[in-house]
Amino acid sequence: MHVEQRRGTIVESRHHVHVAVVDGEGLLVAQAGDPDLVTFWRSAAKPFQALPLVSDGVAERFGLTREMLAIACASHSSEPAQVQLVRDFLGKIGCSERDLLCGPHPPLSDKVAKDYETRGVRLTAVYSNCSGKHTAMLGLARYHDWPTEFYARLEHPVQQRCLAEVSRWSDVPVERVGVAVDGCGVACFAIPLRHMALAYARLGSGESAVVAAGANRITEAMLRHPELVAGEGRPCTDMMRAHPGRVITKVGADGVYSALLTQERLGVALKVEDGHGASAALAMAAVLADLGLRPQPESLVAKPVTNWRGEPVGDLRVNGGLER
Amino acid sequence: MHVEQRRGTIVESRHHVHVAVVDGEGLLVAQAGDPDLVTFWRSAAKPFQALPLVSDGVAERFGLTREMLAIACASHSSEPAQVQLVRDFLGKIGCSERDLLCGPHPPLSDKVAKDYETRGVRLTAVYSNCSGKHTAMLGLARYHDWPTEFYARLEHPVQQRCLAEVSRWSDVPVERVGVAVDGCGVACFAIPLRHMALAYARLGSGESAVVAAGANRITEAMLRHPELVAGEGRPCTDMMRAHPGRVITKVGADGVYSALLTQERLGVALKVEDGHGASAALAMAAVLADLGLRPQPESLVAKPVTNWRGEPVGDLRVNGGLER
Repeated sequence: MHVEQRRGTIVESRHHVHVAVVDGEGLLVAQAGDPDLVTFWRSAAKPFQALPLVSDGVAERFGLTREMLAIACASHSSEPAQVQLVRDFLGKIGCSERDLLCGPHPPLSDKVAKDYETRGVRLTAVYSNCSGKHTAMLGLARYHDWPTEFYARLEHPVQQRCLAEVSRWSDVPVERVGVAVDGCGVACFAIPLRHMALAYARLGSGESAVVAAGANRITEAMLRHPELVAGEGRPCTDMMRAHPGRVITKVGADGVYSALLTQERLGVALKVEDGHGASAALAMAAVLADLGLRPQPESLVAKPVTNWRGEPVGDLRVNGGLER
Repeated sequence: MHVEQRRGTIVESRHHVHVAVVDGEGLLVAQAGDPDLVTFWRSAAKPFQALPLVSDGVAERFGLTREMLAIACASHSSEPAQVQLVRDFLGKIGCSERDLLCGPHPPLSDKVAKDYETRGVRLTAVYSNCSGKHTAMLGLARYHDWPTEFYARLEHPVQQRCLAEVSRWSDVPVERVGVAVDGCGVACFAIPLRHMALAYARLGSGESAVVAAGANRITEAMLRHPELVAGEGRPCTDMMRAHPGRVITKVGADGVYSALLTQERLGVALKVEDGHGASAALAMAAVLADLGLRPQPESLVAKPVTNWRGEPVGDLRVNGGLER
């Protein structure tokens, strides 16, 4: 499977896509390219970094809302309501914005970014797309009486707890999970695509009662709040809204994507080999369509390529499909 | 040859690179990937779009300076002196900024872009990195008494003249050159990498007296003015300054690059398959080093990958070399 940029009628650039589609038992149901490719899960691992909130009892202790669980799994757009939700979440766990260690960046939504630039909004840590995840990590530290300082460091028990959760769901032993530093400063995890897909499939399979209790609250939070998982006009939100309750999609940086098809109980993981984000969203929409979730949002079927004057001169679209 | 992004010690993303190294007779001297890959030459074709200035007598008629020939071949950084040079060039041919049809965009140099944003500079067409090329096209129209309106359209004699020049140097018949619209609105040309490399090799081979007369003035202009071909801190300028008189490097959008090694009389063309620009610059530096031009600028050996707080978390570097 490729995502191709055409200029006029000629292919100008080509993005290789690797895909694994797996059921709850880890059976490879469909694939493209190399389903065993090892890469970083980045933000697509967030549901598993958020799971200890439920399984360890953090959510119950602090009275976290479903919206707070959803924003813990989000790469949000820094929309005003999303930022306010993170502030409320921080309040619930007795922390403040000053405890957040995520570096600031322009909002992932161009519209929000432009709006904040016009209004001169100062982008602090709470505006980071990862601020929900970081707040969840602070909540986990508070609950276990771990220090809230330096929670981003790999050796901190919060990161070790997240690593253990990623290992448990993906069936990759802790010592075989590759670890490095994510864009927001915390640990990120490298595992094969096939195992990422397995983790997502298990998230929806409700096999084990203990696991399922936590998982159900996380999947329900995401399914009920597509507007929190990403934001207005962003691919995850649009793909989830197109088939309510049927799919969770979660983007990660550098061309990685994961999904759970709730009815089919299938997990999907894909990586655009070169890390191209726009291509990853088109590829995920194509994979979901291939697996029966049709139609996909128009904006994810093809993306126009424009010149500097804004005139369309070509497009970006998927070529090829899944192999079974 | 690949350009790999490592996060920590693990490869996260990979960019495929295709390279052709060709001598003045078209012999393939070295390669990587598919040297026959067809893609758009984009701004790396600028020396050939500028050549009619010399060969048709435009430069002589209007008294164009060497700096003006260099800026005609440039993807400049919109630096104040570069923009002034384009304004002077427009004056020489009796045109004004209002005649330029290139759409505006933020300067290719982050430093210049930030400076202009701070100072509230309004980015008009003359600030486009292609404004030198567009001015050359207006000069060509003036010289031949062609209309200066709509000079960007493919059917306009200016574009047809450029197409003929590209065909002549690359040895690709006009009817086999793929044509589409470039980012700046004029025609751009798709040909195999091997033929792009041939054109650059011939630019420095001085075979035919007629051809050479024009070519020599273009190559001399570029070799003497690396600071105009791109700008301070940009890869083309840095690679040319590292080996004065020895090499012309010319970037194009979406991961294409071309070069002439003047002593070896070799032409190089490469394409990062997915269009990644930073990788293309690293790949070109690696190819030039492989061909004997050592050392290459430190900044083009590896590019740090940082998190949002600016801390290094990995890097981007070339893996693999040329095959002979």
